[in-house]
Formats: sequence, structure tokens, C-alpha cells
Amino acid sequence: MPLTMNREVFITCAVTGSGATQDRSPHVPRSPAQIAESAIEAARAGAAVVHCHVRDPETGAPSRDLALYREVTERIRESDVDVVLNLTAGMGGDIVFGPSERPFPVNEAGTDMIGAAERVEHIKQCLPEICTLDCGTMNFAEADYVMTNTPGMLTAMGRMMTALGVKPEIEAFDTGHLWYAKQLVADGVLEAPALVQLCMGVPWGAPDDLNTFMAMVNNVPDDWTFSAFALGRNQMAYAAAAVLAGGNVRVGLEDNLWLDKGVLATNAQLVERARGVIEGMGARVIGPQEVREKLGLVKRAPAG
Amino acid sequence: MPLTMNREVFITCAVTGSGATQDRSPHVPRSPAQIAESAIEAARAGAAVVHCHVRDPETGAPSRDLALYREVTERIRESDVDVVLNLTAGMGGDIVFGPSERPFPVNEAGTDMIGAAERVEHIKQCLPEICTLDCGTMNFAEADYVMTNTPGMLTAMGRMMTALGVKPEIEAFDTGHLWYAKQLVADGVLEAPALVQLCMGVPWGAPDDLNTFMAMVNNVPDDWTFSAFALGRNQMAYAAAAVLAGGNVRVGLEDNLWLDKGVLATNAQLVERARGVIEGMGARVIGPQEVREKLGLVKRAPAG
Amino acid sequence: MPLTMNREVFITCAVTGSGATQDRSPHVPRSPAQIAESAIEAARAGAAVVHCHVRDPETGAPSRDLALYREVTERIRESDVDVVLNLTAGMGGDIVFGPSERPFPVNEAGTDMIGAAERVEHIKQCLPEICTLDCGTMNFAEADYVMTNTPGMLTAMGRMMTALGVKPEIEAFDTGHLWYAKQLVADGVLEAPALVQLCMGVPWGAPDDLNTFMAMVNNVPDDWTFSAFALGRNQMAYAAAAVLAGGNVRVGLEDNLWLDKGVLATNAQLVERARGVIEGMGARVIGPQEVREKLGLVKRAPAG
Amino acid sequence: MPLTMNREVFITCAVTGSGATQDRSPHVPRSPAQIAESAIEAARAGAAVVHCHVRDPETGAPSRDLALYREVTERIRESDVDVVLNLTAGMGGDIVFGPSERPFPVNEAGTDMIGAAERVEHIKQCLPEICTLDCGTMNFAEADYVMTNTPGMLTAMGRMMTALGVKPEIEAFDTGHLWYAKQLVADGVLEAPALVQLCMGVPWGAPDDLNTFMAMVNNVPDDWTFSAFALGRNQMAYAAAAVLAGGNVRVGLEDNLWLDKGVLATNAQLVERARGVIEGMGARVIGPQEVREKLGLVKRAPAG
Repeated sequence: MPLTMNREVFITCAVTGSGATQDRSPHVPRSPAQIAESAIEAARAGAAVVHCHVRDPETGAPSRDLALYREVTERIRESDVDVVLNLTAGMGGDIVFGPSERPFPVNEAGTDMIGAAERVEHIKQCLPEICTLDCGTMNFAEADYVMTNTPGMLTAMGRMMTALGVKPEIEAFDTGHLWYAKQLVADGVLEAPALVQLCMGVPWGAPDDLNTFMAMVNNVPDDWTFSAFALGRNQMAYAAAAVLAGGNVRVGLEDNLWLDKGVLATNAQLVERARGVIEGMGARVIGPQEVREKLGLVKRAPAG
Repeated sequence: MPLTMNREVFITCAVTGSGATQDRSPHVPRSPAQIAESAIEAARAGAAVVHCHVRDPETGAPSRDLALYREVTERIRESDVDVVLNLTAGMGGDIVFGPSERPFPVNEAGTDMIGAAERVEHIKQCLPEICTLDCGTMNFAEADYVMTNTPGMLTAMGRMMTALGVKPEIEAFDTGHLWYAKQLVADGVLEAPALVQLCMGVPWGAPDDLNTFMAMVNNVPDDWTFSAFALGRNQMAYAAAAVLAGGNVRVGLEDNLWLDKGVLATNAQLVERARGVIEGMGARVIGPQEVREKLGLVKRAPAG
Repeated sequence: MPLTMNREVFITCAVTGSGATQDRSPHVPRSPAQIAESAIEAARAGAAVVHCHVRDPETGAPSRDLALYREVTERIRESDVDVVLNLTAGMGGDIVFGPSERPFPVNEAGTDMIGAAERVEHIKQCLPEICTLDCGTMNFAEADYVMTNTPGMLTAMGRMMTALGVKPEIEAFDTGHLWYAKQLVADGVLEAPALVQLCMGVPWGAPDDLNTFMAMVNNVPDDWTFSAFALGRNQMAYAAAAVLAGGNVRVGLEDNLWLDKGVLATNAQLVERARGVIEGMGARVIGPQEVREKLGLVKRAPAG
Repeated sequence: MPLTMNREVFITCAVTGSGATQDRSPHVPRSPAQIAESAIEAARAGAAVVHCHVRDPETGAPSRDLALYREVTERIRESDVDVVLNLTAGMGGDIVFGPSERPFPVNEAGTDMIGAAERVEHIKQCLPEICTLDCGTMNFAEADYVMTNTPGMLTAMGRMMTALGVKPEIEAFDTGHLWYAKQLVADGVLEAPALVQLCMGVPWGAPDDLNTFMAMVNNVPDDWTFSAFALGRNQMAYAAAAVLAGGNVRVGLEDNLWLDKGVLATNAQLVERARGVIEGMGARVIGPQEVREKLGLVKRAPAG
């Protein structure tokens, strides 16, 4: 087929993230109840997958409190909406360096470097169908913040996820992250076919021009499943790009706060908008059960 | 800017074409009155430009009858809707060969090879703001039909269009057509910056995969304006692709008959659908006056 | 593997072509004896394949005289050098149009349009291991000359080649030709895996920039074998590009007359130069027997 | 021009690097005298630029001892060979983490994180014409080693280099590094037009397939100068790729130890081999004075 457009597309909604977006939009959910509710609304709007971080309910600061993850998980599972749960495992690999004349010691405030088992503990307890694996190390947006995931750490975390039967969604923020993802599969750490998210336009990873995007797409193995998103105002443009290139779509308040110029979005609105773009292009938006079959996921029952 | 997405997009509606689509959809307009009416509805739905062929009102067969072009032109100009008129100059370069054991003599029925002046006569008479220039020779869809436009012919026609003050929209059906378009500009036949339509997925020209599309986009000079379309069911997907890559959008019944699976479209519906995709991506759809300013076009008054 | 570089490369030498190159270099062979000798020298220098056209021994004009093809074939087969013989089947699809105000009738002098069986007759008589199939129609370099190969003609010729057990080397001069080549395989006219030559930089086909080249390479099916060349002074650059992209190399006086600025080349010198580039890159140049095994070719014995 | 091939190419020889290559080849220079001598031989073989690190003369371990840099600089400047000196500024941004269950505290042995002024001190003292600026943070080859250069650090170092009048050669190991390089120019930290090295195939940065390479090349601003290399056995292949794509060439023992299978190279041999590939492609290798004119460099006299 000349165009590899995907005609059966799933939407992931990234509902809250870890960024300092709380003070910029009232729609970014904070408490477990809010996060679950926003995720459920996104699912109702057409998201087959919801990707969740948790936050301190008081301050909105990103958190890795196990109780918060459990509460989000249970609230979503107990709702009457079926959706694939995807929890982040990105926390705990954060370094903020000191000033340029004295990078060490690191800035304690923003730094949070913990061991692999602790980074995966909430995955073990909640057993979501999918969890993310940020597949590399890079300068991440702010001046001296480094997202840190070494090959040794990724190998350890990947093995744990595989042992738990939770499907890792590899986050590739640049071409080298995708390269290492293939190494993890070659090493037997992750199972093939893998699932990968192409994360475009996150400073200072891969820019979101179409040449760079296609270089990444051309490097995704034929039997893998991929999704893609672009940070910020190109979010909807990338809903189209991802489908065109044969992939699936991620939208949500983690990546973009705006529905239109001057109009702050809700997660459900972003999903609805993406659905319109995808269906307008002539593709069908698939639901959680079709995603499970496609990716070989097993749905966990509510804890009760 | 990392992504060259176009945020001010014009839509061209190709309202009828020359293909044998008449018997496949009742919405393909045939008579000058029908063609003008469909063009006007497309303009009302958001098309800044309407691209028109004419047809024999009785049979629906493609025609290059001057009176038909004049009638379409006048009806559109006299309407209360403002729109940029774009007339085809693609007729008169058609060869259908004899069978494979005897290609010559050519099949008289489908063959229509005329001189440059005659091919441009309706442009001279109607003075649309834009006319097309199919920038090469290739096997075109059917078994033994060749769309024939030699460099000598293109040079002659291009000079005439330039002299008339009508902006040629170069149709590039493959990478070599775009190369020759640049030669026409280098030769002084066409003025820079030029306007080009990237025509994807027309058998047997450029396929509509994104790698091929980006190779063509990367070869469009920075100061040119481009639009793009894909034939058939990827029409809406290419509305998105074109915008993402920095270009403008063409839709319409010349290229695609379907709105959804099993649902035949009207021109206005296709424009409306494209508008939804474009605006959903966060771009603005611009009108005819902005297109004229962008491309340096001069609007002609009605004949009256 | 991140880079798909080909480490076992065969060189095709295109020894004479049909172009008006005779008066620009004394090294372009003309008579069957000269053509065979130049081919044999190229093989001695490292070409595993020799691609031959024939010419009128008196005038140098391109010819499709069966006796000339037979003589070239026999001389090469009877030599003490082993080489894979590749004969052109490109002749007989030539139209030169009349001037732009009167394209028909065609210019008799340059026009030569014959039936499929006649175009393949020398292949039937000589049974080379490979013959070329120019996979489309396009404006070819000169002002009003069109290389004409319709889908119907290609289907007829392809079937004959397949029936004869001669491997077609598909010549793709633009992205649409490669698309149609895949259709010929899908239609069962040609056998998979096919062999394709990516012909870059021939006006007015695909330009020889790397973006366009990669778009074509990305569209070659994984199990096919490809080679590539660029016309003119980028010939050696494309020896490198082809290997880097996973393909094989074509050089020779059909495509380029020059060894260095101001220095006219022989075929053997061009092969030797290409060999140096390829080996300098760390790849191995393979011989005719390895090519036969790779492509499933059967060597024919001399007629005697 | 359809192909942007560079026809006036400079070669940079990266003579020793910081890697543990000492025990794998006797040709990797270690003492300042050896490094200078190898650089001088590379220049004699055709390198216009020599890129130098220094090593502990006893152990071969990478060093940032100022006296060693000064000695290398003086020896090269005092030689009778003219060459552009390029010193690394890559040292001092190294972290090796602890094991995956306890990444902090970092491994003291491999970690070396110092302030910007100290990282640039040898540049200030030696005033080479060019110094490198590794434009990002990433997992670098080994399991838990991170090459660490935050935006804050790069801004500080870049300002110092600009103030010293030493041209930074931006090292882009992935697409995001190139993006940030453009930001440094936009911020006024680096001057336009900038000089960038596209570093391909370094695990876990950009892989060295041609699609990824072209995505990077397409993102280099038109007025910048670029060079490229690939790590390991594709070094010579990338000499060809870089030239084809419009760039310059880097080879040397820092990136690759082998001349042929089983044959260890010297720096001069690698330069000579690259020169053969480049000239075989039809380009000219330019010398140090032409590089200075092209890049606006000022040659410093020996310390005398």
C-alpha cells in the first residue's frame, strides 16, 4: 500500500502529567478523584487508553505516593466506563543540577533519583494494563533539569515490567531512544512486538517537523505498534500526522492546555477534537477491547 | 520553527474534473450551470479557490468548448459569492495508444493533441485568476492513456499564461514534474515565486506515502506557495498532511467522490469536512481576498 | 541494523547507451566488436554485470538490429571473462512530437513506436541473463522527446520476459515508475523478488537529491534487490549513495563520460573508480557468479 | 541544484578522543608528543582540521590537564605543517551512576562534573581556532555513563567561547541537540552562521541510517556549515554520505580504529582513505587556509 495510513486508530488521553501546568489551567486535574473523573470523561469522549500521573492533592506537585496511584486506579476500574489504564513509571529519574559554575551538588529541591524497584512499585501494586518507560536521558525543557534513565536502569525496570505482565509503552523522545528500545527488545528485556510512543517537540528532544517524525517512523519495526504526539500547539496537527504515518494518537492536558486560541481545554474536549480530526480523515476510532486484542493486554478486575 | 505547519490555509475545490465519474455519483456537476452552482456552494462552504473543468452538458464527456468555459466563468463571477477562479488548461494533451502489438496509429477516440495556443485560448478569453499547467508526461491511470505535456509545449503554454497575467498553478504529479517546474522558472517562462500543486497518489505518478510527499515538499523552493491533494480515499488525510507540511489544501469531486464509506459527497460537503480537519488542527481557513494578496492575483470583473 | 549499508555490492557497467554521446567522447563504443570489447574490459575491472545497447557501426545511431545484438552477445559469451549479460529492451518506445503549435503528426525522424513482441525479439534470440524494462512514460531530457511505455505495453513485455526466463531489471526513473513496478509484481506479470534500478537525475524524472533518493529506497520492498545511478557528474557520488542505502552500483559511459574534470573516461576506468569508492567505504565487490546466486539467474552458454 | 553535493570538502581528523581505545590499537596516540605527531601526519595526508583531546601520558586515561593541552597546541603550531586546530571542550560533564537500585551517590571513579569556566580554561589558554561544544545530555554508549551538558551549562560555555573568539563546533548527537544549537544561536549565545558536526551512530544518540541523517541535514540552517561522521565501521561510508548531503568529513581514531577488516589504521591512513573516497566522488579536498576563509577563523601564531 502506498500510504500506510492507519484506519483503526486508538486515542490515548494523557490526563494530567507532572508539569507545572496547575496554575495555568483550572482543568488540569489534581486529586485522585479529579484525575479519575477526568480520565473517565476522556474515555467517554472516545479515549481507549488513559495515561495517568498522580499529584499531591494539596499542592498539585507531581507525586509518586503509592496510595494516590491506588486510588486513581480503583476509581477508574470501579467506574462504569471501560478503558485501558496506562500509568506512568517516569517518576524518580529526575536531576536538577546546580548553577553552571557548580553543577554538583545537585539541587535537592528538584532532584529525585531512586532505585528501579521503587520506581516500579506502584506498577506492581496497581497492575495497570500498560505503563510507560521513558527510554533515555536528556535535557528536558527547563534550564538544568535532566530526565535521567540510563541503560542499566531501563534494563532493570523493563525486566520488572515484563515479569509483572504489564505492557511497557516505550516513550521515545528522540531517535536514539528508539534505537535503545530496539536494543531492549534484542536483549530480551522487552517482548516483541513492542509498543512505542513517539514524543515529538519536547525541548530538547526530537523537534516536531515531519522529516524528523518520518525518520523515527521509518525506524519503528514493522510489527510494532506506535502512537505519537507533539507537545503544545501542534497537538492536533500530530493527531493527523500520526494516523497518516500509520500510528495512533495521544492527546490530553499533559501535553497541551488549549482547545483554541484563548480557550482552555478539558481532557474530554481534546479527545473529542482528536476524534473529529481522525474520523474526518476517514479512519475509525477503536475502543479499549479492540486495543487489548491488538496489543495482547489482559484487563484486571477492580480490587474489590 | 521546528514544524513548518501552515496556520493560514486556503482550500481549493476541484469541482468536476475530466474523469468518467459522472456515472458513479449524481453529485458530479455536468452543465455549466451545475458546475458554477457547485463551485459557488463550495465557496460558501469555505473554498477560497474553485478549480473548474467543463463537460458536455448532454453526455458528461470532458470538453474544451470555449462557450462552456465562458458560461461557467460568467456564472461564477456574477454570483454574490467572492471566490478565486482557477480554470484547467490540462485539456488537449491526451494520447490513447493502440494495443500493445500496434501502439501506432493512436486510438482516435481518446486522443486529443492540439497546439499550445488552442490549449490556452479559453484562458485568454476568460482570464481566470489562476489556470493549471500539468508539468509533465506520464502514464495516467488507465491502461494506454498518456497525459502528454512535453517541455516544448510547457514552455509555449507557460509563456502565454505569463503574458496574459494569469497565474499558473503548476501541477506536479511526480518528483520530476517539480524539477521541470523549477526549470521553467529558471528559464524565465514562469515568474517566481511560483504556485504548485503536489498531486499525490495518481496512478502512475508519485504514490501518496509520507516519505514521497516529504521528498517533494523538501524540493519546493522556500518562497513558493504549495497546495497538495491525494486521489481517492486519502483525500482528507492529505488535507491534514498538506497543512502539517506547510501547504494548502485541495479537495473536491474531481479527486474523490466519497464523504464516508457508502456516502457520496457533494463538493460543499468535502470543503466543509476539510475545513473541520484544518480548523481542528488549529489553523485558520483564509478567504479569496487573502489568497489574492498572498499570490499577487488580480480579480477580474464580470464581463457585463 | 541502524544503517542498511550493503557490504556485498555488484557493479553494473552501462557501456554505451543510446544517447548522442558518440561525438563527445572517443571512448563510447560503437560497433559490436567495440561494445563487446569495452564490456569485457569493464568486467575485467570489476563489473559483474554489463548492460548493453547496440548502435549502427557506421553512424553510431542507436539501433535495434537483431544481428548487432547477437554479435555483441556472442562476442561477450565467447570471451574468457565471466560476466552477467544485461541487454536493453528500451528501444522502440520513442516519440518525438512536432512543434508546440502542431504536436501531431509526430516527427518521423525520432519516432519509433513498435509492438511488444518486436521490442522483445532480440531478448528472445539472445537470452541474456537480465534485460531492462523502462517502467513508465516521461519527458526524457530533450525538448519534445517522450520515452513511452504504457501499462499495457509493460504488461505485454513483462509477460514475455518472464516466459523467456530472462530477469527483468525494472528501470524506475521516478517514484511513480517504482509504484507501477510493484503493481506488475502484484499482477503476477513479474516475479518477486524483483530487481530494480533507481535512475536518478535524468531530466525530467526524479532529481538526484538524497531526500528523493531515500523516498524511492524506502519504497523498494524489503526482499527486492536494487541498484542505483545518477546521470552525469554525480555518478561516483551515487556509487557511494547506493551502497549506503543498501543497494548496488551502476556506472558507465551510458550515464557519464568523465573520469575527472577535463578527463574523458573509459568504461573500465569508471568501474575501477567505483570499485575504489565502494571498497574505500568498507564493502566488498562481488562477481558474476555471486550475482547469479543472489538473483537466481541462469547463465547461458555461447551459441556455438 | 537538485543534489546539494559539496564539491569543496574539508576533512577533520579526530586523532585520539577520550575512549578506552588505547589497549585496542597501538596507533592511538597518548602523550602530547604522540598526539601532535599523529595530528601533523594527518594534516600532511590531507586533513585541514585536527580535533584533539589529551590523555595521561602514563596511563592513557582521558585528561584535562592544562599543561598537556598547551604542549599539544604548541607542538602543532610549531610544526612546519599548516592545519586548523580544534580542541575538545567535552571534558568535565561526565556522570557514572551507581547501580540500578541505588543510582545515587554517583560512581566517583567515572564522574567528573565541573564548572563552565574550568571546562573552558584550556580553550582560553590555548586559543585554538575551533573548540567543540557537545550540545546536549544523553546516555553515552556504556551502561550507566551519561554525557551531561545542560542548557544552563551550554549557555555559559558558549558565551565564553564566543567572547574568546574561538569558533564553537557544535556536536549534535541527536536531533534534539541540533534543535538546541539553533536555540543557542537564537539566544545570541553563538554567532550565526554556526558550525555543526552531525555525530551519527553513537549509542544511544542518532542511529546512522540515511533517513535519520537526512532528517538532521534537513534541519541544518542553509547558511551554516556542517560536517558529519559515523562511529565505527561506517566511518568511510559516512565520508561519502556527508559529501553527498552537502557537508564535510570527519574521520580518525577517535571514532574508528580499523582501516580494513583485521587491519588497524593510523590517523594518516584514515585521512588518506577518506580523501580517496571524496576525490573518487569528484569533489576537491580543501586545505586549512580555505577553511579559515570559509568559517572566518583567525590563525594564532605559535606562543613563541
